Amino acid sequence: MDRNEVTKKIVAAKVAGKMTWSEIAAKIGKSKEWTTAALLGQMTLDVKQAAVARELFDLTDEETAWLQIVPYKGSLESAVPTDPLIYRWYEIVNVYGTTIKELIHEEFGDGIMSAIDFSMDIQREPNANGDRVQVVLSGKFLPYKSY
Amino acid sequence: MDRNEVTKKIVAAKVAGKMTWSEIAAKIGKSKEWTTAALLGQMTLDVKQAAVARELFDLTDEETAWLQIVPYKGSLESAVPTDPLIYRWYEIVNVYGTTIKELIHEEFGDGIMSAIDFSMDIQREPNANGDRVQVVLSGKFLPYKSY
Amino acid sequence: MDRNEVTKKIVAAKVAGKMTWSEIAAKIGKSKEWTTAALLGQMTLDVKQAAVARELFDLTDEETAWLQIVPYKGSLESAVPTDPLIYRWYEIVNVYGTTIKELIHEEFGDGIMSAIDFSMDIQREPNANGDRVQVVLSGKFLPYKSY
Amino acid sequence: MDRNEVTKKIVAAKVAGKMTWSEIAAKIGKSKEWTTAALLGQMTLDVKQAAVARELFDLTDEETAWLQIVPYKGSLESAVPTDPLIYRWYEIVNVYGTTIKELIHEEFGDGIMSAIDFSMDIQREPNANGDRVQVVLSGKFLPYKSY
Amino acid sequence: MDRNEVTKKIVAAKVAGKMTWSEIAAKIGKSKEWTTAALLGQMTLDVKQAAVARELFDLTDEETAWLQIVPYKGSLESAVPTDPLIYRWYEIVNVYGTTIKELIHEEFGDGIMSAIDFSMDIQREPNANGDRVQVVLSGKFLPYKSY
Amino acid sequence: MDRNEVTKKIVAAKVAGKMTWSEIAAKIGKSKEWTTAALLGQMTLDVKQAAVARELFDLTDEETAWLQIVPYKGSLESAVPTDPLIYRWYEIVNVYGTTIKELIHEEFGDGIMSAIDFSMDIQREPNANGDRVQVVLSGKFLPYKSY
Amino acid sequence: MDRNEVTKKIVAAKVAGKMTWSEIAAKIGKSKEWTTAALLGQMTLDVKQAAVARELFDLTDEETAWLQIVPYKGSLESAVPTDPLIYRWYEIVNVYGTTIKELIHEEFGDGIMSAIDFSMDIQREPNANGDRVQVVLSGKFLPYKSY
Amino acid sequence: MDRNEVTKKIVAAKVAGKMTWSEIAAKIGKSKEWTTAALLGQMTLDVKQAAVARELFDLTDEETAWLQIVPYKGSLESAVPTDPLIYRWYEIVNVYGTTIKELIHEEFGDGIMSAIDFSMDIQREPNANGDRVQVVLSGKFLPYKSY
Amino acid sequence: MDRNEVTKKIVAAKVAGKMTWSEIAAKIGKSKEWTTAALLGQMTLDVKQAAVARELFDLTDEETAWLQIVPYKGSLESAVPTDPLIYRWYEIVNVYGTTIKELIHEEFGDGIMSAIDFSMDIQREPNANGDRVQVVLSGKFLPYKSY
Amino acid sequence: MDRNEVTKKIVAAKVAGKMTWSEIAAKIGKSKEWTTAALLGQMTLDVKQAAVARELFDLTDEETAWLQIVPYKGSLESAVPTDPLIYRWYEIVNVYGTTIKELIHEEFGDGIMSAIDFSMDIQREPNANGDRVQVVLSGKFLPYKSY
Repeated sequence: MDRNEVTKKIVAAKVAGKMTWSEIAAKIGKSKEWTTAALLGQMTLDVKQAAVARELFDLTDEETAWLQIVPYKGSLESAVPTDPLIYRWYEIVNVYGTTIKELIHEEFGDGIMSAIDFSMDIQREPNANGDRVQVVLSGKFLPYKSY
Repeated sequence: MDRNEVTKKIVAAKVAGKMTWSEIAAKIGKSKEWTTAALLGQMTLDVKQAAVARELFDLTDEETAWLQIVPYKGSLESAVPTDPLIYRWYEIVNVYGTTIKELIHEEFGDGIMSAIDFSMDIQREPNANGDRVQVVLSGKFLPYKSY
Repeated sequence: MDRNEVTKKIVAAKVAGKMTWSEIAAKIGKSKEWTTAALLGQMTLDVKQAAVARELFDLTDEETAWLQIVPYKGSLESAVPTDPLIYRWYEIVNVYGTTIKELIHEEFGDGIMSAIDFSMDIQREPNANGDRVQVVLSGKFLPYKSY
Repeated sequence: MDRNEVTKKIVAAKVAGKMTWSEIAAKIGKSKEWTTAALLGQMTLDVKQAAVARELFDLTDEETAWLQIVPYKGSLESAVPTDPLIYRWYEIVNVYGTTIKELIHEEFGDGIMSAIDFSMDIQREPNANGDRVQVVLSGKFLPYKSY
Repeated sequence: MDRNEVTKKIVAAKVAGKMTWSEIAAKIGKSKEWTTAALLGQMTLDVKQAAVARELFDLTDEETAWLQIVPYKGSLESAVPTDPLIYRWYEIVNVYGTTIKELIHEEFGDGIMSAIDFSMDIQREPNANGDRVQVVLSGKFLPYKSY
Repeated sequence: MDRNEVTKKIVAAKVAGKMTWSEIAAKIGKSKEWTTAALLGQMTLDVKQAAVARELFDLTDEETAWLQIVPYKGSLESAVPTDPLIYRWYEIVNVYGTTIKELIHEEFGDGIMSAIDFSMDIQREPNANGDRVQVVLSGKFLPYKSY
Repeated sequence: MDRNEVTKKIVAAKVAGKMTWSEIAAKIGKSKEWTTAALLGQMTLDVKQAAVARELFDLTDEETAWLQIVPYKGSLESAVPTDPLIYRWYEIVNVYGTTIKELIHEEFGDGIMSAIDFSMDIQREPNANGDRVQVVLSGKFLPYKSY
Repeated sequence: MDRNEVTKKIVAAKVAGKMTWSEIAAKIGKSKEWTTAALLGQMTLDVKQAAVARELFDLTDEETAWLQIVPYKGSLESAVPTDPLIYRWYEIVNVYGTTIKELIHEEFGDGIMSAIDFSMDIQREPNANGDRVQVVLSGKFLPYKSY
Repeated sequence: MDRNEVTKKIVAAKVAGKMTWSEIAAKIGKSKEWTTAALLGQMTLDVKQAAVARELFDLTDEETAWLQIVPYKGSLESAVPTDPLIYRWYEIVNVYGTTIKELIHEEFGDGIMSAIDFSMDIQREPNANGDRVQVVLSGKFLPYKSY
Repeated sequence: MDRNEVTKKIVAAKVAGKMTWSEIAAKIGKSKEWTTAALLGQMTLDVKQAAVARELFDLTDEETAWLQIVPYKGSLESAVPTDPLIYRWYEIVNVYGTTIKELIHEEFGDGIMSAIDFSMDIQREPNANGDRVQVVLSGKFLPYKSY
């Protein structure tokens, strides 16, 4: 058994139980973004969170233990994703990548926007021409240091 | 001559002239995000915008014409970007890709967040523990239709 | 269990039952193009459509639930397809890709032809020199916006 | 000198001369689809067509000779195209590839839709919800033979 | 079950039964080249051929049905084959590819040699310096048409 | 200067001089297949052959010397060729690769068909349904030895 | 069942039985190099050799038959091997590849060193500064022929 | 200027001057294997060796300096080499890789054969059935240590 | 059964038994770095170490034997690792690779830092601005020799 | 002009001027590790540092400006490096990657070792059995946060 199998069991239980990620997140007590990532095998749960997951998805002792182990991260099956929704994000990185780089460096100097000390918020943005997806990303700026 | 060479000339002129993208965007009359992408060869300028660029970067007639032609887009040199700042964005897609997919589908059903009817806003978010980069992405939701 | 296994079961049942996609589509009440894509694991069925599929392919409760979940899309096993029929389509994109790009931009300006708000119709075109395959693709034009 | 350099010269002359592909095709006497593909280095021109091209783009003797030589075809720079417009076509092949395969085989049996005895027509399809791009592809069906 | 599993079963039965492809082809009533390709999962059998295969390899109803379904073709495990015998063919394409292209175009003009309306014949060519493998490939020439 | 540049010069001279490969081969005194491969940079010419090439393509001393040096072979730009004519050959290897392997092993045992002690002959095969390209490949069988 | 599974069974039996390749080769009656390659699924055994293997590894009838079928060769899992010992060999090809090419051509002219009519001998070479691995490779030179 | 350009100049001078690697090695005072690798840009020359090279190939001061700088090694243009002579070596690694690994470990335990403390000797091995290439590789065994 | 399966069993037992690598290393009697690598399938255990592992993870005879066999090394699933922690190491190689090369050559001349006669030590480095990970790598310098 | 060309000029000037990285670093006033990385195009210099570089390498105004612009980072030419010294580092990541991950997580929990707030120190470690390269890497631990 590995974390992957726990993820598959959780997803199947969610499909069978007709739960939503928002409901699950409310029970875990964290944002829907973090909770979904965690249950899809990308984050580490603490003891309490794992206990809630155990209840919700009817997990065994060993499966519950796996949720508390840091996973090998990476949720895509290929370097360039094939799913259209996820590809659009890859396309944004491809088309706007150098733009993002230029503007962050212009504002902050040499360094990066952290993908670790990072949060994400996904919301519906009502719009007369068709609703929009609004995503807010927030990452700490980490400067390169000379030494 | 192709668009790539115009981009190189613009970047070199910007370095030599010590201009910022924000100043340039103010003169073009568009957001700094769109303007930077456009001048890095990813977007198409209209006649007026091209005329301003001509002034700023001392372009020839032909170079100015190229800015008004739709470019072959894609700003990265390899499928997985090597630059650390741009890689962090690729990592976000890699780690959170399935999460983003699940949550958008949960809210909107099957479809995608457009990368075409799309805008981006990059700001400094002051923070006592170190300032953060805040990026707001907004894309129209486009539903898959059955037929 | 995941969507892939449901697809395999459907295809095997179709082979065993000697059904055609056209017959199946008539029962689902949608075009043969959309229905085939959906049952090959690329689209999401609604409750009624899933109920028809359940009947036709003798699916379980869980399998029927999977059909109503948005799938991870992408039906090819490698970046360049090896099957000759599908490769010819890849070849069209390879040989005519820049042509398609030039002509759509000439007519519409900068933007794309949607692959989401999209439909396809495949028909036999009788011809004395050998019948032809006629495919009509229709996708909404989505213009890039400056902001 | 090779065909590639002739293509670059033609594209640059077209940009400088503000010609459209439709105007050029009318002078060449062929469809805009075939003409564009040919001048982008994918097809072979006959003597008369090459003479027209010579006039239009101010080509030398050697450049005109290259247009009449069968080119090494393939217009993309990478196996998976990065340009969003061209990528959407690759996505259609990726998402609908197995569907296209199933339906052509259902109608015609084992074989392929030719990408050689093939034509393409790209038109604007007016639509109240936003105009659409309509593309009609027609390729001879070629059956596999047993022997 | 899919076609791949049927192929594996056929190959295993052939090994266990110590049959040769030539004997099998004689019973199927087709050339040894086509028959081998078909039973290795690359071609589609008709009802009679499938019935013979059923006898020879002790297939079930469903396995027999799979043989009559057009398969997803492609018999190699990687883009560049690792097996030395098959690699030599890839090497021929690699070293002589542009030569073949030049000579076919010189004789026939722009177009291709069909890999669909195609046959192959493999024979031993006795030779004092060591016997040779002689392979005759015959494919219809398909000209590109302008339109 | 390297062999590649000599090849480019030869091809350009051939286009400018409107020569055919058959005429050139007659002057070199070898088959059109070997001659074309040699002049496209894949084979080594002897002193006499190089002298003829010098005449035909107006080469310098150094260029003539390069023709007599064993080249780094390989005429394709990518692992999977994009040109449709050359791709069809790759497709033959892909679809029939395991078939070729089985039949050569059945006739000869374990070993390979040489791509070095090898010749090729390309001819037009007249046919009422459209002429065919006939290619005869002949390669010495080389058995694996145990030791 | 396929050859791969027979290989796995042999390796597991060897580990469980604490045999060495040298002992096994002595029983098979061939060099340790050829025997190891054969039992790792790269070579074809004759009837007698297969009978010995059957004894040693407790194989079934079908498994013994598989050893006498020419295998699909290639023992690495990726184009660039990850195991350090095997990688060093790939590194030798990478660093010295063009050197080997130049020196063989200088001595023999255009052609190759056969990897089929080939043998290998691996020995310990005692050395005061630390023992060395000595490998002797011997392959027939095969000249390219013009025709 | 970089090392690559120095290599190209040396090779072109060797072709123009009709020198052999053996003659050059004799003047450099090292084996033909090491000397060829060094002059093809894979090894570092000392002051004396560089001075000889300067004479032989008519190098400038800067070019002579480059020969004494440790180069970025790797002489192949792609992960899998396309040249048949070099490919045969890659094939040996592919087919015999796991065999080499097993036998070295059986004799020496866990560790590698060094590709640094390494030498190679390439000789003609006369043989009635056709001369053979004999290559002797000698590399120090380096054991993995636990700590 | 192969080494991979033994590794999976060990990791699962460690998760179920809530052991730490440091505790395990103490029992094995080696550093935590070497022990972890060994139990993750990258190193070879001796008889005593394997006996301890047997106790700790409740292994069978055959599993214990596998631990004493030299494994096929390489712990990553893709050439570019997707896990953020491991990717940062790949990034260090990518960004600083040429720097490391220059400085080692400047100090030692041409050669490498061994990855075999090598040890690693990972420690927490307390720091007021946030603790740091300190890693000390030590590898024997191996000089290239000319011959 | 771009940063790459500045790097090439600096390296060529260093070779011609026979400077060492240590001497250069002493003049720049930073460690030899950071200085080398910066001058190889991976880091951004401040005004003073750029002025020193200008002196040392005889740079123009524009070249000096480029040194103060954040570069597109990544110093390797391929995903898997071919140079043996750099490859050994890639091998360490490959063999020890999962070990490093396990031990950092065991000590610190979920998070990464920063490659931005990072320093490196390369030293000669005298040793009777042959000197060693000692490298100390120090990176701030950055914990993943839940939100």
